[in-house]
Amino acid sequence: MWPPPTTTRFTVTYHVRADAASIEQRAQGIAVEQSVEMPLAAIDDPWVLSDIVGAVEGIEDLGDGRFSVGIGLALDTVGRDAGQLLNMAFGNTSLHDDVTLADIDLPPDLLGVFGGPNQGIEALRHGLHARNRALTGSALKPQGLPPAKLGQLAEQFARGGLDFVKDDHGLADQDYSRYADRVRACAEGIRRGTRATGHPTRYVPSLSGNLDQMRAQAVLAREEGLDCLLLAPMICGFATFQTLRREFPGMAFMAHPSLGGATRIAPDLLIGKLFRVMGGDAVIFPNFGGRFGYSPETCRRLADNARGVVHGIRPALPVPAGGMTLDRTREILDFYGPDTMLLIGGNLLMARENIAREAERFARAVGDWSLG
Amino acid sequence: MWPPPTTTRFTVTYHVRADAASIEQRAQGIAVEQSVEMPLAAIDDPWVLSDIVGAVEGIEDLGDGRFSVGIGLALDTVGRDAGQLLNMAFGNTSLHDDVTLADIDLPPDLLGVFGGPNQGIEALRHGLHARNRALTGSALKPQGLPPAKLGQLAEQFARGGLDFVKDDHGLADQDYSRYADRVRACAEGIRRGTRATGHPTRYVPSLSGNLDQMRAQAVLAREEGLDCLLLAPMICGFATFQTLRREFPGMAFMAHPSLGGATRIAPDLLIGKLFRVMGGDAVIFPNFGGRFGYSPETCRRLADNARGVVHGIRPALPVPAGGMTLDRTREILDFYGPDTMLLIGGNLLMARENIAREAERFARAVGDWSLG
Repeated sequence: MWPPPTTTRFTVTYHVRADAASIEQRAQGIAVEQSVEMPLAAIDDPWVLSDIVGAVEGIEDLGDGRFSVGIGLALDTVGRDAGQLLNMAFGNTSLHDDVTLADIDLPPDLLGVFGGPNQGIEALRHGLHARNRALTGSALKPQGLPPAKLGQLAEQFARGGLDFVKDDHGLADQDYSRYADRVRACAEGIRRGTRATGHPTRYVPSLSGNLDQMRAQAVLAREEGLDCLLLAPMICGFATFQTLRREFPGMAFMAHPSLGGATRIAPDLLIGKLFRVMGGDAVIFPNFGGRFGYSPETCRRLADNARGVVHGIRPALPVPAGGMTLDRTREILDFYGPDTMLLIGGNLLMARENIAREAERFARAVGDWSLG
Repeated sequence: MWPPPTTTRFTVTYHVRADAASIEQRAQGIAVEQSVEMPLAAIDDPWVLSDIVGAVEGIEDLGDGRFSVGIGLALDTVGRDAGQLLNMAFGNTSLHDDVTLADIDLPPDLLGVFGGPNQGIEALRHGLHARNRALTGSALKPQGLPPAKLGQLAEQFARGGLDFVKDDHGLADQDYSRYADRVRACAEGIRRGTRATGHPTRYVPSLSGNLDQMRAQAVLAREEGLDCLLLAPMICGFATFQTLRREFPGMAFMAHPSLGGATRIAPDLLIGKLFRVMGGDAVIFPNFGGRFGYSPETCRRLADNARGVVHGIRPALPVPAGGMTLDRTREILDFYGPDTMLLIGGNLLMARENIAREAERFARAVGDWSLG
């Protein structure tokens, strides 16, 4: 029974601000912190010493006062728990402000456990009869509107022929606009719109609360005939996300980055890779040149991580967002290519009574680019 | 029915790196981002404009290139959802790397909803017959030991007369040491130790996984006669924490900061105030002068937030930790005073076969200081 079989390791990469004289010791310190978290001299168990203690696998000078440090961590310490993955990769080390979590090299075993997107890009395309073109989306805002008004807005977006109409991530289950009322009103609004256009626009309600509440919300969405859900993995927790993904295999999940920037976790890792692995069919992130400060390079890596070929899990749709405007359609699509959902929120709403027409212009601009 | 009654506001304080010429616009931008997240010009609803859109309440030059910005957010946007509190206070703004979430002024309504610690400092003291002295704790490590060995270690700590023996936060439900086996073995070890000393040492198992799994783990702990639980709010999510706190009113919760440093949320706010409000009876944080970089001032504010008088919720026990050593006992207690739990982990384990004796020295040093 003891010791257990040899455990596989997976490599976690940290970027550490340090000088050349101290980096080896710092690297060893991280290896200990993220595994046994105690002095090695006080450990007797040979299996713990050989298999559980983190191992420094490589140190590389990044040339800018930082070093890239690869640490091999024991896969068995993670088990099948999504929360535990973050805990082992960055739990205590997050408390050091000179360390960034740069990458996690997830082995096939772990990908198999977490499973990635339920649907993936191809299924999303199929459901929208959108074989080659980029996809479009907008958001129901502002927070504070009563369900009926949100439903009317949803109808306008659908009449414009958009692919996805998602709840603003601030829409929860507030007294002035309960989830059930809103989702029924918006689903009905979308149905009215799609009857007019023939295009199967998807409504994507936002889940909130604890696991039980999110489950009930997902069931209600399913009863309304919906097959897409939005959630914020950093708010609800990775374990909650994983549970919902597993219990609702017919649903596509759109992952919102809320609270996800308040990290020293590289966005291309967190949003592009981890949100996908946890089950994000589409991952929203702040595009360069909008209201947020991500660089084009970060956005490129993030998109690559989201839809790159990874054996055993489906690709996820990158969704650049955050202050996007219609006149940037061409530029953004030139950058990301067609396996992308363009999300324009507030800028479409500026059209006020002409929202359906503005949404249609948006849908056409994306279609034109894709055919062009 | 519409508009709803006027909503109360609560103030959220951000520290923003900006110059004097741009700060007003930045502040207004945050107020919009954290409420309606769209151009105000596109909003018709008078109630949304008057009650839901965030309001800049004050801007103060901090004199170091940063400004302190107070924003009034509508309480109704949070509702009764703990996750939504973080979402509304810092969801998208977390994506701006020049903004820190400095404080949230939680109104009585919200404190009443979240409720704070189930037990609080006095009840913890009462259960340990420790009226005036500071409290002691240690951690079961390393990760990777089989349950029987962890149980023996727990017994040694109990024989040394410690108040709290907590699981290392890396102990989850791994194949090599299942939660149920470990908790039974450690609870039994603690019972053996307390029979010898007569001191009611508390064992604090660490919960992991999703809400269902954590619930089942809490039930098992209760069946073993335990009344303290450890969890990591940033891993499991605030809504999960709140749910467990409510469903297990007899339990005291110890909150671990894992992943909590990977934020631009001030530690005194996140760990000292928010972990308490969510239900932390004891809140663990990296002490100054240990393995982590928090300053004495941060630790002071954090401890003040944890145990300061707040109408309607109980005080939480601050637990400075992270590379603490026995010879710092006096210094640390001089700094924090008696309403504190000292947590020494790895340093006690260095005593190897003399752990019980070393734990006893630790308990005595804390007792001596408290009487002195």
